Amino acid sequence: MTDKLIIFDTTLRDGEQSPGASMTRDEKLRIARQLERLKVDVIEAGFAASSNGDFEAVRTIAQHIKDSTVCSLARANDRDLSRAAEALAPAARGRIHTFIATSALHMEKKLRMTPEQVLEQARSAVRFARNLCGDIEFSPEDGYRSDPDFLCRVLEAVIAEGATTINIPDTVGYAIPELYGQFIRNLRERVPNADKAIWSVHCHNDLGMAVANSLAGVKLGGARQVECTINGLGERAGNCSLEEIVMAVKTRRDYFGLDVGVDTSQIVPASRMVSQTTGFVVQPNKAVVGANAFAHASGIHQDGVLKARDTYEIMRAEDVGWSANKIVLGKLSGRNAFKQRLQELGVELESEAEINAAFARFKDLADRKSEIFDEDIIALVGDESVTAEQEHYRLVALNQHSETGERPQARVTFAMGGREVTSQSEGNGPVDASLKAIEAQVQSGAEMLLYSVNAITSGSTESQGEVTVRLQLGGRVVNGVGADPDIVVASAKAYLAALNKLHASVERVAAQG
Amino acid sequence: MTDKLIIFDTTLRDGEQSPGASMTRDEKLRIARQLERLKVDVIEAGFAASSNGDFEAVRTIAQHIKDSTVCSLARANDRDLSRAAEALAPAARGRIHTFIATSALHMEKKLRMTPEQVLEQARSAVRFARNLCGDIEFSPEDGYRSDPDFLCRVLEAVIAEGATTINIPDTVGYAIPELYGQFIRNLRERVPNADKAIWSVHCHNDLGMAVANSLAGVKLGGARQVECTINGLGERAGNCSLEEIVMAVKTRRDYFGLDVGVDTSQIVPASRMVSQTTGFVVQPNKAVVGANAFAHASGIHQDGVLKARDTYEIMRAEDVGWSANKIVLGKLSGRNAFKQRLQELGVELESEAEINAAFARFKDLADRKSEIFDEDIIALVGDESVTAEQEHYRLVALNQHSETGERPQARVTFAMGGREVTSQSEGNGPVDASLKAIEAQVQSGAEMLLYSVNAITSGSTESQGEVTVRLQLGGRVVNGVGADPDIVVASAKAYLAALNKLHASVERVAAQG
Repeated sequence: MTDKLIIFDTTLRDGEQSPGASMTRDEKLRIARQLERLKVDVIEAGFAASSNGDFEAVRTIAQHIKDSTVCSLARANDRDLSRAAEALAPAARGRIHTFIATSALHMEKKLRMTPEQVLEQARSAVRFARNLCGDIEFSPEDGYRSDPDFLCRVLEAVIAEGATTINIPDTVGYAIPELYGQFIRNLRERVPNADKAIWSVHCHNDLGMAVANSLAGVKLGGARQVECTINGLGERAGNCSLEEIVMAVKTRRDYFGLDVGVDTSQIVPASRMVSQTTGFVVQPNKAVVGANAFAHASGIHQDGVLKARDTYEIMRAEDVGWSANKIVLGKLSGRNAFKQRLQELGVELESEAEINAAFARFKDLADRKSEIFDEDIIALVGDESVTAEQEHYRLVALNQHSETGERPQARVTFAMGGREVTSQSEGNGPVDASLKAIEAQVQSGAEMLLYSVNAITSGSTESQGEVTVRLQLGGRVVNGVGADPDIVVASAKAYLAALNKLHASVERVAAQG
Repeated sequence: MTDKLIIFDTTLRDGEQSPGASMTRDEKLRIARQLERLKVDVIEAGFAASSNGDFEAVRTIAQHIKDSTVCSLARANDRDLSRAAEALAPAARGRIHTFIATSALHMEKKLRMTPEQVLEQARSAVRFARNLCGDIEFSPEDGYRSDPDFLCRVLEAVIAEGATTINIPDTVGYAIPELYGQFIRNLRERVPNADKAIWSVHCHNDLGMAVANSLAGVKLGGARQVECTINGLGERAGNCSLEEIVMAVKTRRDYFGLDVGVDTSQIVPASRMVSQTTGFVVQPNKAVVGANAFAHASGIHQDGVLKARDTYEIMRAEDVGWSANKIVLGKLSGRNAFKQRLQELGVELESEAEINAAFARFKDLADRKSEIFDEDIIALVGDESVTAEQEHYRLVALNQHSETGERPQARVTFAMGGREVTSQSEGNGPVDASLKAIEAQVQSGAEMLLYSVNAITSGSTESQGEVTVRLQLGGRVVNGVGADPDIVVASAKAYLAALNKLHASVERVAAQG
């Protein structure tokens, strides 16, 4: 047993399974790079066999990430495992994570297999995988609700076949810390070759206890890997939050006695990047990364904090990457200052051309806004997430008007492929009118699932507004993000960005077909 | 020991201590009524001695709430206790909750008192309080970080003086479930008269474990009251979430063996009301009340859910108040249908005049929007939260325009006291221009802390947009909410609503001065 806790981030796999959180390959790569800066031990990059898009994302991340192990999920069958190995081939260190359900309910209702069939499939899958990759993780899906006797047989078999990590998921978020910790401990005591593998926990947050359950699995159960996501992103109520796990283990080192390799100063930048990319807001009272996590309002508390900070604070905001001074640049700042700030913010642009484009937008914004905050810069760069060659649609000009007693009107000019088109419409509001004007020309037929606005900096309406639009078309869900001090313009940009993603995916499918 | 778990809601007290979550008396009363419908056992309505506004809020709630116990916080001194008793005088059942810090750090740095002085003050405060009220709760602030020997002496003394509930706060969110549960158990075993009081837990979520800590205090420690808030609202990372505690105890009744009196079908309406009133968004992956809490995206999960729901779901969305069919009313719906829907939504308007005003807005909205959803109705009624006599400012008309290459322009006409004024301005966007136009006339000098937009229904831009504006002036923070299909109009309404609250508080202070 080691005294190090392995942090396994699954934002790009389990996190992406949230309805509406799907990301493009470029977005996933950008997040993977931030996870590498965060120094997570393992990045689960996707589920290579699930789609060509996921395969490409895993492969691209495997090509670019060198410091973290890159992992792909795979069902327990030869095709999935081969696809995973193929996608991971370029990785400095790769891991295949294979799974099969072991609870009576899942075996009977979902898999329609007998326990003996499941045992045999798990065994043969790990044997097959072990020939493709030296680092194999096995998960018995719905493990926490599985019969312990049966589970022990499966786990003993897969360890004997060479599984190096054994992960016990609480797939439905049903566990209680004490019971989950005992469950893991019991398995580790009963499986004869348990010490040949590192044990891992994977908890969902349906009852609000994912972090405590994971930590009970570690402390009481002896697990040494935690699977988690940035902002607790994930299906339903999400996964265990990386930021909470890491800060709990660091803050209560007296109790856990474990090291984590994460660079905590990259936590808040990672949180913002994931929130911006998915359009999933972080609530102000979210632990560690919420806007209020380090803020005090009541007079009694303020008084206490002024007298001695530790009366009401157990962590320091700086330690998790809340920078003290947020004003950074203005109208007179040059390209070098801008580029340096990008580096400090952990933003890597792919080329000088992208930096130049972002700098041009920065100067344009600085003409309209006196103080440029870090968030503004991140938003500017966020606009770059669709690279030029994918930009099928691009906003050229917008003119809108609303007046009490009349229907709001908008006229939008935008590039569509090579040509420029102008379209106008009325709507329930100026945003609605602008989007309807675009849709009248594009005729995508996409359904809007979400329209959300964040005022980026300090809440003022002088700031850039950041808009996320989530569209669904033919089972595919995409997010588009746009930023501008004019909320109507930001909305039009976001809508066009989402249309670009739909367009790119159609092109990709056509190319593959 | 009873087998019932007492749910003590402190949304209106500890929740309101979140920076920017302050509420008006009317908003607090509306939330208190929803808490009563939710059937919480105790409503902590405020901290009567902290301000005249808080006193009035506690008193108003004490007058109107009959089914839940109404509680006021009070420091351990005669003045605070007397004010609390005075505010609670009209209550069917009242409780005074008094506290003093007992940790070495807080006693030395904040109170600057010796332990013996603190012990004496706690004892005399409870003795004094007991003469004012039969139901006395005592909290040793920062109790979890206090010396257990000293804490036992304090708790024995206050129980001897008649404290009926003993609450052990983890004020800074530092606890771990196992340790916190043992801490409570140890106190209960060592305090000789422990069985004369009901023990209570109060946990903060700084490390993401407030729910698990509270439940360990219950299961392992034997506590029978949990203090919590809707949406986990509260200072920093917030308090223990009511919805998570309640659903954990209900879903895992096999483990806890406890009853809770809460009507869970009122949870989602309560969550929405608190979110709308404070402007604090609920993140989509929030347990129980997040938009995605019951949503599935991955093919494997969808397949499983279709085959047998309990493969991936441990609770039912209907049980916590997510109504299946959200389309309710349209253009042709009459006043009775509207009124009945208000009742079903748990919205109580104070008078027929208010219902008429809301119905007029409903018809106006129905002219512009084909399907009126529950959220639209709640938003309409939300507009009513400042009653007519407090409406110093009111929007009359708005005209705005923006065009690429030009500065956005707005002209706003609004009522200010008796007269109508028109003002115009340019700004960085049409929203900014509109608010600047209003501010140019009002000259409030308020600082904007937050500007947030929620598209209310299903994310479409055809929906009503709901805007929250948070203003700060002279240490007072207020939220204004406005709703309209035109986001610029909603923003102007929200800004005027916030100005109304600032105006009302100035009037109130002037009247009291």
